[in-house]
Amino acid sequence: MSDHVYRVTEIVGSSSESVDAAIRNGVDRAAQTLRNLDWFEVSQVRGHLEDGRIKHYQVCMKVGFRLDD
Amino acid sequence: MSDHVYRVTEIVGSSSESVDAAIRNGVDRAAQTLRNLDWFEVSQVRGHLEDGRIKHYQVCMKVGFRLDD
Amino acid sequence: MSDHVYRVTEIVGSSSESVDAAIRNGVDRAAQTLRNLDWFEVSQVRGHLEDGRIKHYQVCMKVGFRLDD
Amino acid sequence: MSDHVYRVTEIVGSSSESVDAAIRNGVDRAAQTLRNLDWFEVSQVRGHLEDGRIKHYQVCMKVGFRLDD
Amino acid sequence: MSDHVYRVTEIVGSSSESVDAAIRNGVDRAAQTLRNLDWFEVSQVRGHLEDGRIKHYQVCMKVGFRLDD
Amino acid sequence: MSDHVYRVTEIVGSSSESVDAAIRNGVDRAAQTLRNLDWFEVSQVRGHLEDGRIKHYQVCMKVGFRLDD
Amino acid sequence: MSDHVYRVTEIVGSSSESVDAAIRNGVDRAAQTLRNLDWFEVSQVRGHLEDGRIKHYQVCMKVGFRLDD
Amino acid sequence: MSDHVYRVTEIVGSSSESVDAAIRNGVDRAAQTLRNLDWFEVSQVRGHLEDGRIKHYQVCMKVGFRLDD
Amino acid sequence: MSDHVYRVTEIVGSSSESVDAAIRNGVDRAAQTLRNLDWFEVSQVRGHLEDGRIKHYQVCMKVGFRLDD
Amino acid sequence: MSDHVYRVTEIVGSSSESVDAAIRNGVDRAAQTLRNLDWFEVSQVRGHLEDGRIKHYQVCMKVGFRLDD
Amino acid sequence: MSDHVYRVTEIVGSSSESVDAAIRNGVDRAAQTLRNLDWFEVSQVRGHLEDGRIKHYQVCMKVGFRLDD
Amino acid sequence: MSDHVYRVTEIVGSSSESVDAAIRNGVDRAAQTLRNLDWFEVSQVRGHLEDGRIKHYQVCMKVGFRLDD
Repeated sequence: MSDHVYRVTEIVGSSSESVDAAIRNGVDRAAQTLRNLDWFEVSQVRGHLEDGRIKHYQVCMKVGFRLDD
Repeated sequence: MSDHVYRVTEIVGSSSESVDAAIRNGVDRAAQTLRNLDWFEVSQVRGHLEDGRIKHYQVCMKVGFRLDD
Repeated sequence: MSDHVYRVTEIVGSSSESVDAAIRNGVDRAAQTLRNLDWFEVSQVRGHLEDGRIKHYQVCMKVGFRLDD
Repeated sequence: MSDHVYRVTEIVGSSSESVDAAIRNGVDRAAQTLRNLDWFEVSQVRGHLEDGRIKHYQVCMKVGFRLDD
Repeated sequence: MSDHVYRVTEIVGSSSESVDAAIRNGVDRAAQTLRNLDWFEVSQVRGHLEDGRIKHYQVCMKVGFRLDD
Repeated sequence: MSDHVYRVTEIVGSSSESVDAAIRNGVDRAAQTLRNLDWFEVSQVRGHLEDGRIKHYQVCMKVGFRLDD
Repeated sequence: MSDHVYRVTEIVGSSSESVDAAIRNGVDRAAQTLRNLDWFEVSQVRGHLEDGRIKHYQVCMKVGFRLDD
Repeated sequence: MSDHVYRVTEIVGSSSESVDAAIRNGVDRAAQTLRNLDWFEVSQVRGHLEDGRIKHYQVCMKVGFRLDD
Repeated sequence: MSDHVYRVTEIVGSSSESVDAAIRNGVDRAAQTLRNLDWFEVSQVRGHLEDGRIKHYQVCMKVGFRLDD
Repeated sequence: MSDHVYRVTEIVGSSSESVDAAIRNGVDRAAQTLRNLDWFEVSQVRGHLEDGRIKHYQVCMKVGFRLDD
Repeated sequence: MSDHVYRVTEIVGSSSESVDAAIRNGVDRAAQTLRNLDWFEVSQVRGHLEDGRIKHYQVCMKVGFRLDD
Repeated sequence: MSDHVYRVTEIVGSSSESVDAAIRNGVDRAAQTLRNLDWFEVSQVRGHLEDGRIKHYQVCMKVGFRLDD
């Protein structure tokens, strides 16, 4: 109804499993301290390699949440 | 043999499951109305959050298809 | 200890299964000929379509590795 | 409930009045032929000049709409 | 005199009226909790459509403010 | 006189001859089904290689055309 | 008739009122010294904040004008 | 020998013939008023369409020239 | 061992001396309030001019730090 | 049949004749040392000017080739 | 007080010493012919190599200056 | 005289001292194995932080070198 304002924070989630899990880990951690999470958008997918294998997928993403009026 | 021309359309596929499923859902829907689909390229991965969890993965992508001569 | 120098090479991994598998296939192939792989970053996710289905996921990525001193 | 798919079309709205009016004119025209319009995003603001004055504001924008299931 | 350091935060202001009002709403809300606001820069103009009309203009912007020494 | 609205479509023209011919082939094909073509802008120049030679030049371009009032 | 050449200059217009006014102020000033102004395109919208309010809207834009043959 | 400084100016060359001719026309015109031209780089290739044909190729480019010491 | 999550904050460091000093000043200030700083990346180098001289170098950068588990 | 991996190398072809010739010269040279060339994509078109004329067209491009399994 | 308009010019400063010196050389040269210089922003850092060493650092930058009312 | 072809390789130089030193270290290492180095261009400046201080400056850059005819 009113004209909401949102804040956007940038996080990097990581996972040794998959890109999707890295996104979920990042969102889960953000949800521990931020309320009213509304959307995310991925800005980069990268990862750390060790001994020729993927050690961690790392997903940089912006997370938007609604500020209280 | 001849010099083909392609058209590129932009769609957003969504899924509550995963990034891959959102891509597949988008391609499936495009295939219902377009023939000769040839390639896709992802332009953005984002999603909708509700109660601190991922409600939908949303993948914006361009889909190219060959036009009849 | 010393100031390392890294080289970055660009590869495209593909898979008929998933985005994650395309990334892994690319890294596996790079690891056959390059030592000291250190990180990767995805620059594009695309794919080839045939008969209205995804035939191959193709992931362009940069792979960084440490050069010997 | 289901996993919706959206299509994105690109239009250029113009107006001799203002940037906002050019956006509204573009949306109005799109609404004449497309149903279920959902969002727009501006990709460029430009304009045509004549005799040292702004003759038309031109706003390029992407417009997304939900495809029927 | 001294070498100031600034922090940049990202917000999305919205308004049912106009792009300018969405910017102002975003700045007003930021000013409730942040001191020494110094500049803003728009990174995206988008909006929500309903029944073929603009329901909300949404302006993503970065806001910079000076940190205390 | 009135405030025109334009639509932008994205096509890929190809040619075994040259970049210019690929652009012309794309425009020619678009002109078969679209009226009031007004401008084009090239977004990418690429091509297909076979046996170490250029088999096809491929030019991605946006083509704008005026919608009827 | 002949193949015109255009020059593009970059200016920043400002206004304490609105984005549109900042664009107009920039164009007005350019028109004082340049003839045959033909188009403008906005490259950035930003502004200066003071006491938690917008002091000036600043619009960076490119202005194109036709050179005499 | 000394540390030269260059200036970069932006022009748009046009031609009814080809992309290459549009580049040459732009450079030729720049050479009428600027000395010590050193390099150019194309920033956009576009064109004007009329009756379903290319009326003009338009090439936006930056042209760099050495300033006298 | 566990799948860390990082937050990325954006700051602008300034210095009347050099680009490097502006980076260091920004990092020093961030270290006063944030723990577990892990990396920075420069997004823009700019500066303020006065009387034809560089008054301040200003370096915009993103700073990443590890969140506690 | 299998999931191919490609490598992408970046080259700059030059020619005193035309953009197309610069592309061909770059591809020809790459074909002397690389097998299984598959595609190219232009990343920049620029050139060297001397005495107010185009001395060399220079085309930066990425060239992709299939790695042996 | 009034709504200033600024012009932005693009220059390339060079130096055999350092990136900072290349920036300063560019600003110094601009200050010889332009008044009211207000800011600069670096758009590219590059350089010329000879015999395996850096012969010149070259910094492309935009320089903004206030136009007289 | 002839139409040279160049190859572009991407490296990351690092230094605990400064941005300039990281560039030089990268160029020095490249010069050990590549002949006819011609230019470099910086694509990213970043660094590693430890205990709230800059441990390493890391400069990603492209290095171009002339291929033998």
